[in-house]
Amino acid sequence: MLEADFKYVIDTFFALFSMVLIIFMVPGFAMLEAGLVRTKNVTSVLTINVMIYAVASLAFLLIGYNLAFGSWENSNMSVWAAFLFQMAFVGKTINIMSGGVSERVKIVPLALFAIVMGAIIYPIVVNISWGADMIAGTFLDMNMHDLAGSTVIHSTGGWALLAAIIIIGSRKGRYAGDKIKVIPASNIPLVVLGTFLLWIGWFGFNGGSIGSISTIENADAVAKTIMNTNTAGLSGAIIAGILMYFRYKLFDITMILNGALGGLVAITAGPELYNMYTPILIGVIGGALVVFAVPVFDKLKLDDPVGALSVHLVNGIWGTLAVGIFVESISFIEQLKGVAVVAVFAFSVSFIVLYVINKFVKFRAEDDAQQEGMDVNECGVEAYPEFKRAI
Amino acid sequence: MLEADFKYVIDTFFALFSMVLIIFMVPGFAMLEAGLVRTKNVTSVLTINVMIYAVASLAFLLIGYNLAFGSWENSNMSVWAAFLFQMAFVGKTINIMSGGVSERVKIVPLALFAIVMGAIIYPIVVNISWGADMIAGTFLDMNMHDLAGSTVIHSTGGWALLAAIIIIGSRKGRYAGDKIKVIPASNIPLVVLGTFLLWIGWFGFNGGSIGSISTIENADAVAKTIMNTNTAGLSGAIIAGILMYFRYKLFDITMILNGALGGLVAITAGPELYNMYTPILIGVIGGALVVFAVPVFDKLKLDDPVGALSVHLVNGIWGTLAVGIFVESISFIEQLKGVAVVAVFAFSVSFIVLYVINKFVKFRAEDDAQQEGMDVNECGVEAYPEFKRAI
Amino acid sequence: MLEADFKYVIDTFFALFSMVLIIFMVPGFAMLEAGLVRTKNVTSVLTINVMIYAVASLAFLLIGYNLAFGSWENSNMSVWAAFLFQMAFVGKTINIMSGGVSERVKIVPLALFAIVMGAIIYPIVVNISWGADMIAGTFLDMNMHDLAGSTVIHSTGGWALLAAIIIIGSRKGRYAGDKIKVIPASNIPLVVLGTFLLWIGWFGFNGGSIGSISTIENADAVAKTIMNTNTAGLSGAIIAGILMYFRYKLFDITMILNGALGGLVAITAGPELYNMYTPILIGVIGGALVVFAVPVFDKLKLDDPVGALSVHLVNGIWGTLAVGIFVESISFIEQLKGVAVVAVFAFSVSFIVLYVINKFVKFRAEDDAQQEGMDVNECGVEAYPEFKRAI
Repeated sequence: MLEADFKYVIDTFFALFSMVLIIFMVPGFAMLEAGLVRTKNVTSVLTINVMIYAVASLAFLLIGYNLAFGSWENSNMSVWAAFLFQMAFVGKTINIMSGGVSERVKIVPLALFAIVMGAIIYPIVVNISWGADMIAGTFLDMNMHDLAGSTVIHSTGGWALLAAIIIIGSRKGRYAGDKIKVIPASNIPLVVLGTFLLWIGWFGFNGGSIGSISTIENADAVAKTIMNTNTAGLSGAIIAGILMYFRYKLFDITMILNGALGGLVAITAGPELYNMYTPILIGVIGGALVVFAVPVFDKLKLDDPVGALSVHLVNGIWGTLAVGIFVESISFIEQLKGVAVVAVFAFSVSFIVLYVINKFVKFRAEDDAQQEGMDVNECGVEAYPEFKRAI
Repeated sequence: MLEADFKYVIDTFFALFSMVLIIFMVPGFAMLEAGLVRTKNVTSVLTINVMIYAVASLAFLLIGYNLAFGSWENSNMSVWAAFLFQMAFVGKTINIMSGGVSERVKIVPLALFAIVMGAIIYPIVVNISWGADMIAGTFLDMNMHDLAGSTVIHSTGGWALLAAIIIIGSRKGRYAGDKIKVIPASNIPLVVLGTFLLWIGWFGFNGGSIGSISTIENADAVAKTIMNTNTAGLSGAIIAGILMYFRYKLFDITMILNGALGGLVAITAGPELYNMYTPILIGVIGGALVVFAVPVFDKLKLDDPVGALSVHLVNGIWGTLAVGIFVESISFIEQLKGVAVVAVFAFSVSFIVLYVINKFVKFRAEDDAQQEGMDVNECGVEAYPEFKRAI
Repeated sequence: MLEADFKYVIDTFFALFSMVLIIFMVPGFAMLEAGLVRTKNVTSVLTINVMIYAVASLAFLLIGYNLAFGSWENSNMSVWAAFLFQMAFVGKTINIMSGGVSERVKIVPLALFAIVMGAIIYPIVVNISWGADMIAGTFLDMNMHDLAGSTVIHSTGGWALLAAIIIIGSRKGRYAGDKIKVIPASNIPLVVLGTFLLWIGWFGFNGGSIGSISTIENADAVAKTIMNTNTAGLSGAIIAGILMYFRYKLFDITMILNGALGGLVAITAGPELYNMYTPILIGVIGGALVVFAVPVFDKLKLDDPVGALSVHLVNGIWGTLAVGIFVESISFIEQLKGVAVVAVFAFSVSFIVLYVINKFVKFRAEDDAQQEGMDVNECGVEAYPEFKRAI
């Protein structure tokens, strides 16, 4: 057997393995968000998760993949495996965005946006950051190091979310003057389950982004990437726990889990480049950023029921810059430029697309519908029809 | 290292990887069904899922595998891995069947049937369709193409279910004259979680059925199989969503998920044979078939709380025939013959076995027990004892 | 490509695959325990699961791995993969322990114990049993065969739990004179989901412990290990179901699942050494031991809400001895010695550490806090705030 054949087989297998882990993030996001919203909006959130995964993936199959990578060809592994791995990424950007506008967003316009995201917006971001760079080319001359998408995935989703929150507004009754109504999560086990499915998916996300496991160097890089990814998640969880405990003498599990996710987002730009200790620092800062950012966004009345801005946008930026800070061979300026270019592009294009869709099909549910719950109004199916409500 | 050794190692690893994905279908079916039934029957459904997986797998170990494949030998991978991969399939046929008789079936007779299914019925279907074909041999001369079991697994389970519904009857109070009592699902997050675990398991089911990943051709076939499998699932979900929305202006999540499952069942007969666009059509028809079949079975008073007949039986047939329609090299007549042979065999043998078991141990719970709930009567354990019931 | 390179790549990939499966045990334990406790303690149990995984894993990264294995070096696979595989084990010992003191234990002291466990106690057990054996060396001269830790993981966790129960005491109101208050599990679907995630994780645990899949012999050993592991789980579930049915005419799902787990623990010491039938016997005895041990521990007023003593301690011992009974080449005396050495070490050191921590930070929550629920007192977050309580 030729060495090239061996590599092709192993790297195809490895891409499929990684892709499967990432697909666990689909139920991961679904469970996380279903657990964080009120019972009257659970079915709606779940339906959104299913539908946007479906339409965005199909849009990427039909249009987006070609736009991002220029062709359906690949030499070092099966092109179908390469596609599947990339496709598994697509839904994430919209998941990030959809979660943050939960409890007042309608399904149809969101699905329309997901199609545009999967067919055009995300593929262009990939193209200028990772891809053939046919679109911006020498004009932008991007040199950002972003292994698995702190910026390309998480910030892109975060910027789209910010645009969406501005256009859609906050949930009815969330802010009254300076008062913020606390809306508790309805199902904590689902939040925990969802977070760990995401965490496991991250191993595929970041490990798989090395792109090959078929040489000793690559095998080491994959393993180190997964180890560092995990370390940052652990550290984010611990710091969030400590901060909550020192402030409130209580371990707020939703904040601890968002701290873990913050650490995971932050490490994603360069997990293969760090030694085994730096990810602790990156995760600690990432987790702390979540704890501090959540109340800031609330002060700004940017209503985000799942904390997605703090987790994905703030830490997407932090993680990308961190590579420029901690890794000597990486230019901080190039990292900053990458963050800025994607910010301008993702925010403005998302805003325009959301704005245009909103002209035809309103994203925001009426106050009455929000009051009654999105499930009854959008799905006709209650999440837990037999459980009597206490509140 | 010899090339043969390399292939043996890689294909064993790949079979184990695929098998693990399929085992995720065990909690997948369990969560899906637990979410779809009423809270008073949740523990019973879960217990059934655990017990039939256990007894059917053990029966396959002790008797079935040998009957299906003729010997405990294998040359291109570890025979233990080959067994595990096949064993992972067995429980599915009974899962399909047990879900459809939920909320009125008793555990002991179902476990007895599961033993017969795992030891004899399913192995014979495998033998005549995929296996050594020692049993029917030249008499039947089966030439059906059914990669991962649209017919062998899904229709077989579906026919057994049809036989079971005829023998066991509908749930108490489900049909009164021409009226159909709507019984809502009790826990939608579990339904979504279960569906995605099944979806992920399908990658192992179909991808693993290629049987090898250790050459460039096989690696391509595996990756393409997984891609096409996923595409059909996406398409089934989307069409079901669209149809529900145009009819009711509501996104019924349970129908959307059953649409996805319908697409997945339909693609299963030949995912490696299609180009990247055909699975869209197969999934669209598969998802639409579910939407139209569900009310038809209800009109026929075939009470199936989880929609298993529509998902597995209808789409098992559709998927098998589709290979004969869309792939030039495959004979439609042979596909039809395969569907018919398995139909006759699986339905009639299941019917006889169910009938005989039913003579000794009644499958159907008494009306009182159904009213009170199967959990209290069969398990002594309520699923959610602390949650107050609204209905 | 050199054969050594091939092995390095494949075995690294296989270790990562195994590690990912084991990490599914983190949500596995979390869901299992969250389902078994009362709703007022669910968030607390989940928070404990997250925090102890985080701190113990980080302690193992910073201190424990070096203590267990003597160096950060490895020649037959990536050291980072070797670390990840071992790290995935660490949290299990504390998971076993933390589950058994649920519903009255406080988070801070438990997290402190988890750090000591991950940094020192568990690494020493590994060192004397599996590792460089620098610590006890020729003095102990351990020759126990314990492939994946019936003793090293499960008994160690079990002994730590026994020490913890003695120090912390039983839940308020659990025992009044000779009466035992039955406290039902609050969420059965979570119990089932958690058990199957553990079950799947076990394939990685035991299969991965072969340490290599890159030769025909090793590939066979891995596949056989996974098959035998599964068989023991199936058998444990079946015997527990049968015993419960003959005694109570009811299928108690929690006992059936604990029977499965008992079988899985018991097979863990030597799954690669048995033929394909012996695991049935090992699982049957393991499952039966759980059924008989649970009431015994209750008679001894050792309050263990999740049955961890019966599952992990009793079957950890049984499984380790079973290797000496059923495998000719293994010395029963050496197995017994291994069990005894780990028993003395793990129990006494855990007891001392728990005792010392308890002097500074009490493990046990006040009666009032137990009455009100750990969630409100420790986390400030209710698990299901919207569901009205029936009890």
